[in-house]
Amino acid sequence: MDFLPAPEWFTSEWLNTPEPLSLARLRGQVVVLHAFQMLCPACVSHALPQAQRLVVATRDAPVAVIGLHTVFEHHDAMTVAALRAFLHEYRIHFPVGVDARGTNGGDIPQTMRAYTMQGTPTTVLIDAAGYLRRQWFGAVDEFALGIAVGRLLTEQTTETPATTAAAEAAAIYSPSAGCS
Amino acid sequence: MDFLPAPEWFTSEWLNTPEPLSLARLRGQVVVLHAFQMLCPACVSHALPQAQRLVVATRDAPVAVIGLHTVFEHHDAMTVAALRAFLHEYRIHFPVGVDARGTNGGDIPQTMRAYTMQGTPTTVLIDAAGYLRRQWFGAVDEFALGIAVGRLLTEQTTETPATTAAAEAAAIYSPSAGCS
Amino acid sequence: MDFLPAPEWFTSEWLNTPEPLSLARLRGQVVVLHAFQMLCPACVSHALPQAQRLVVATRDAPVAVIGLHTVFEHHDAMTVAALRAFLHEYRIHFPVGVDARGTNGGDIPQTMRAYTMQGTPTTVLIDAAGYLRRQWFGAVDEFALGIAVGRLLTEQTTETPATTAAAEAAAIYSPSAGCS
Amino acid sequence: MDFLPAPEWFTSEWLNTPEPLSLARLRGQVVVLHAFQMLCPACVSHALPQAQRLVVATRDAPVAVIGLHTVFEHHDAMTVAALRAFLHEYRIHFPVGVDARGTNGGDIPQTMRAYTMQGTPTTVLIDAAGYLRRQWFGAVDEFALGIAVGRLLTEQTTETPATTAAAEAAAIYSPSAGCS
Repeated sequence: MDFLPAPEWFTSEWLNTPEPLSLARLRGQVVVLHAFQMLCPACVSHALPQAQRLVVATRDAPVAVIGLHTVFEHHDAMTVAALRAFLHEYRIHFPVGVDARGTNGGDIPQTMRAYTMQGTPTTVLIDAAGYLRRQWFGAVDEFALGIAVGRLLTEQTTETPATTAAAEAAAIYSPSAGCS
Repeated sequence: MDFLPAPEWFTSEWLNTPEPLSLARLRGQVVVLHAFQMLCPACVSHALPQAQRLVVATRDAPVAVIGLHTVFEHHDAMTVAALRAFLHEYRIHFPVGVDARGTNGGDIPQTMRAYTMQGTPTTVLIDAAGYLRRQWFGAVDEFALGIAVGRLLTEQTTETPATTAAAEAAAIYSPSAGCS
Repeated sequence: MDFLPAPEWFTSEWLNTPEPLSLARLRGQVVVLHAFQMLCPACVSHALPQAQRLVVATRDAPVAVIGLHTVFEHHDAMTVAALRAFLHEYRIHFPVGVDARGTNGGDIPQTMRAYTMQGTPTTVLIDAAGYLRRQWFGAVDEFALGIAVGRLLTEQTTETPATTAAAEAAAIYSPSAGCS
Repeated sequence: MDFLPAPEWFTSEWLNTPEPLSLARLRGQVVVLHAFQMLCPACVSHALPQAQRLVVATRDAPVAVIGLHTVFEHHDAMTVAALRAFLHEYRIHFPVGVDARGTNGGDIPQTMRAYTMQGTPTTVLIDAAGYLRRQWFGAVDEFALGIAVGRLLTEQTTETPATTAAAEAAAIYSPSAGCS
């Protein structure tokens, strides 16, 4: 399998982090991006608690759990001030970016559009080299996500010392990569 | 890290499988062994449903989810006939071995003792080469188990073509193995 | 509405009580009868925990929560010894009667048949005068059961001093009874 | 027991109802008032779903389930526009009043103060005559609430035809009232 680089993020603000994040800055870590809206019931009841559990489970591993507030409706209700209060009340401590408002006044924010997300919650799995590996819309099976993250972690571990420039150019970060 | 081979299983009977299983027969697959008692509330409410979800999540992967009925109390209530009815009512379809009664009339069955389990539920993770990689007593975090299984699956995938007899002898199946 | 007296119970054994119970002995209390089988998944996951919560919620009220082990299948697995171990492991402390085996060797036990139960779990609500007020098969909405119990408790409180023999003969224990 | 009349409500706005509600307008119904904040996690995960279940369970009974948005923090995030979006997304269809901002610029809204609520969620039970019968702060046991509502419903049913002005003056609406 070949994978495509994950689209860069377009954000207007970041919370819970001293400085803005970008995919490039997270290179070397498996990235799990949780796109949500603070007034999306399934995000609040399932996806965000799952993200918080993933933070705990990957505390000692090179995994970055990142939130993305992809507001595509009720813009006047889901302001940055409201998001800040929400993160505080729900004790969400991982970094959360605010997806940049759509260009031309459209409702759908830019990163959401770049990933062709269908709605919220959406969970995106990006490998340590920045390739987009999986994207789920709606509830994600906890084992499916855990196994997928575990696979990428070992990939990452195993390929690093073994890869050569040639191998890297050829088949890097695919599930069977890392050995030549 | 170095790992030890998982102790062989001592069973008196097998359900949900045409023929008895053994660790040797499962070589090449990641094995998740769920030790339980049918009258253990935490097994029934948490561990067995988790095992069933793992069966679904690993349907297309070389993972064997195996139950082990490790009766160490209420032997007259948890007979093989009762276990058979239990598996039927709870729609548990994965293979379940009956741990062999303790020698010398002891209450603790033989496999349970061989693995030094502290009680039920106990979840044991064995890699595709038969090494004992992790053992949990009590509730297991779903992400922790999923990530651990995912890691072993990639190990398995990546090391096979790369390993040589020498490497195999040296450091095989440790998390960083598979590349030389 | 008119109600019929609840059929008497036919039991072969009682657990968690110093002496056998009968409907007659419980007159004056609202009775909630939980018919279950120890190997019925919905009983174990929903109905019995609900019964335990009801015990706590009615600790100070004249409510008797009673279990009835209505074995109609897997008779060799759900013996009295197995039931005893089950009640111990699940910390079920309310009285449990063992429904008497069917006459003529039938599988369906006698009380189950007398109440025309459709299966397990079945929850039966009997008022303080011994009238059968409601019977549910399957999961019972917690509010529906709570409200029904609460209604019977006030009936019981209010009608006692007010009723005369005539009123008692006429419309006793119907929801609007107690005032004449 | 003697009970006090429930304090009147001070609201600045009503949603999900064609016209403003007041305790006086609800006389004759058992009232369950759910005080909440849209950014209070326990309200969203427990209290509001419980209120929705209560609406279903009391569909055919004279019970009014009413929400009260008692904002005492993050006022800029929990605006009426945000509340409107929240009720829409969470499919909350029962009437919700917006508690009036505190006088003198205080953070605690007026009804919240009048009931001396300790925080959110708070559940208030008011009988059909307008008396304050119970008030809970935090999670409410579903059976405890159901039984309390059931008791008030029978009180209401039984006392109406029996009461005289004298009885009404004396002991009305106490649990043992309604019969003379």
